[in-house]
Amino acid sequence: MADLLIRNASQILTCAVGENAAPFAGKNQSAIGLTTGSIAIEGDRIMAIGKAADNTKAARVIDARGGVVLPGFVDCHTHAVFCGHRADEFELRAKGVSYEAIARNGGGIQKSTGQLREATDEELRAAVLRHLDQFLDGGTTTIEAKSGYGLSLEHELRALRALDVPHAVEVVRTCLAGHSVPPEYKSKRRDYITLVCEEIFPAVQRDQLAEYCDVFVEKNVFTFEEGQAILDAGKRHGMRGRVHADQLSRSGGARLACRVGAITADHLEYATREDAVAMREAGVTAVLLPGANYVLNQDQRAPARNMINMQCPVAVATDFNPGSAPIQSMPLTLNLACVRFGMTVAEAIIGATINAAHTINRHDKIGSLELGKQADVLVCNVSDYREIAYWLGRNPITHVIKKGVLVREP
Amino acid sequence: MADLLIRNASQILTCAVGENAAPFAGKNQSAIGLTTGSIAIEGDRIMAIGKAADNTKAARVIDARGGVVLPGFVDCHTHAVFCGHRADEFELRAKGVSYEAIARNGGGIQKSTGQLREATDEELRAAVLRHLDQFLDGGTTTIEAKSGYGLSLEHELRALRALDVPHAVEVVRTCLAGHSVPPEYKSKRRDYITLVCEEIFPAVQRDQLAEYCDVFVEKNVFTFEEGQAILDAGKRHGMRGRVHADQLSRSGGARLACRVGAITADHLEYATREDAVAMREAGVTAVLLPGANYVLNQDQRAPARNMINMQCPVAVATDFNPGSAPIQSMPLTLNLACVRFGMTVAEAIIGATINAAHTINRHDKIGSLELGKQADVLVCNVSDYREIAYWLGRNPITHVIKKGVLVREP
Repeated sequence: MADLLIRNASQILTCAVGENAAPFAGKNQSAIGLTTGSIAIEGDRIMAIGKAADNTKAARVIDARGGVVLPGFVDCHTHAVFCGHRADEFELRAKGVSYEAIARNGGGIQKSTGQLREATDEELRAAVLRHLDQFLDGGTTTIEAKSGYGLSLEHELRALRALDVPHAVEVVRTCLAGHSVPPEYKSKRRDYITLVCEEIFPAVQRDQLAEYCDVFVEKNVFTFEEGQAILDAGKRHGMRGRVHADQLSRSGGARLACRVGAITADHLEYATREDAVAMREAGVTAVLLPGANYVLNQDQRAPARNMINMQCPVAVATDFNPGSAPIQSMPLTLNLACVRFGMTVAEAIIGATINAAHTINRHDKIGSLELGKQADVLVCNVSDYREIAYWLGRNPITHVIKKGVLVREP
Repeated sequence: MADLLIRNASQILTCAVGENAAPFAGKNQSAIGLTTGSIAIEGDRIMAIGKAADNTKAARVIDARGGVVLPGFVDCHTHAVFCGHRADEFELRAKGVSYEAIARNGGGIQKSTGQLREATDEELRAAVLRHLDQFLDGGTTTIEAKSGYGLSLEHELRALRALDVPHAVEVVRTCLAGHSVPPEYKSKRRDYITLVCEEIFPAVQRDQLAEYCDVFVEKNVFTFEEGQAILDAGKRHGMRGRVHADQLSRSGGARLACRVGAITADHLEYATREDAVAMREAGVTAVLLPGANYVLNQDQRAPARNMINMQCPVAVATDFNPGSAPIQSMPLTLNLACVRFGMTVAEAIIGATINAAHTINRHDKIGSLELGKQADVLVCNVSDYREIAYWLGRNPITHVIKKGVLVREP
């Protein structure tokens, strides 16, 4: 007797395709683990999948009506704790003003830092809860979420604490104190790096506020050497690194990720084939962020096909943030990954499920539909999984099950 | 006493900006007609707007909660009558296969023609109704809809009839028998053009099945001269022209639109400044379709800024179709217009309301919020109208009022 049975799925994408999923998904569509039938759930666990589950008796039944069933999306790169919006900058960029020029004029990260520092703890938590609701609407059941708009001891800790809210969406936290040098340290950037390494990271470790640390290696942000100092300090305080790498120029972020043993290098528009090989060898997953690539209207594209051909694992995430990526929808992000980066729908879905789960060290629990794994499951009202990415701007998710609990239904 | 009062709007965009709206919207943000307060509706008409409406007594009140209120979107270029999907081609294009190559191999328009001809009348109507529901979800209250997958006397008429369904979304029909030469006429294209001009158009006129005719002028589709013959014949049968113009190459479609006195030229990726001037002089509105430009991953962009600077009126539409634009969301289309074509949010909204209404000769009834006009009104859960385009992949529409009737609510 199951607690919940999802029946009548025309396609079940198990995404159960092993540790280095993305490279294989490119070779064979069946690497997405295509089956059909039902999913039986007991408590928060999957107890049967496919035809074998069809005749399970259950307390509650969801009829997928010939739709597609897949694992809850894992969004492994978000900046989900911010207040307000930056729609003014969106219009400036449409008029041709560059992201860098906006940042130089008090916009960009700096503006969000001001908004976050002015917000009360209550307001911060309310903003996070609103954002988590939106993630769930689009089928995202787990996110990685970075601080990085606090940029002081007090406000980085406040941001990380605001991410600890009761909500169906699970949040894995990253301290991104290395997002930018805040205005008050512009003339003494070394002092800010010392603050990050010697005060913020120890405090984050003491209160167990984050599992990962992150740094933005880019022209006019942090250099390769500064990034290394920050990631090395993070490691000493129990946080494995992630890197904002090679997004707007060839910053060397991918190489840095390999050198320090980071778990991911993210963005990677200017990464090369050599970087892809190095990342594969170093066990660094490439996290591609097609939403930011689109919003910034970049001609330069992350070399997804090279990476997949080189068997470097690829994840796909939203980069949700108020500047370069005000996007939370994973179906739209999958579309962007296909259109802009030339990924197949299967590769993109693998990138937003099991490969993303690997980057937050949760692949034993989530990211695929397998016996005994956590029941994070989506039902979509399409009959061919490629339609999830194909219908642009339509949300195909009808049901979201998180830890065995139905949290969204039509 | 009003029937319906929408109160507490932080911004009301009246879009009441005169006949050549788009050029002015570029110069001054207030050209979007920004006010605040309430909208009072009696029957299907607007009876008061702004602060003046605040104290109107009404049978029913909608609290906009500080949100944005604007006219229902008018989508003036759609191919809304088709069956099934072409997600397989979406993936082929992601892999680098061109739109033209797919068409040569039995995909493209030809595939949709097969699907449409096989569908029963019932299935066609059901597909149209599904599509209209989706339009309404995104705040679109009026569409222009083209046939063009029938491509025979019988099936063009069936397609146009299937668009005549009872639904809140108003449909203005266009006969696009000039969409493509169907497979059975490949070796005798002149015969197909004769069929269109001498059989299909007269039958459409007799049964009053369309107000406009349209032709796809493009390499491997119809030449400039063939397009002219088709549009001239349409005119003789009471249908003013629209043109699929200069999308994939410099086909001369914009020049043709001017020569025959078409009401619109659409797509226009390869149009020039000279075309923009000629279109302004000839009273041809430029209909830009950023969704197709995105899905086809075109580097070439419609010269929206030149057009607006030259005071050529610009409309923005989805191009909803199963091949190059499986998109129905106007908020996402506005985002695409800003990011890809450098339009301001105000210009894009004007393009999707009053300017679009001009292209279907409904500007006296819809497309703006003015006293006595039809009450097609949207409420959005954002406080700054630029957020409608800014939040990528989020549907901000909470309430849709069509002809004074509340047809969507949270």
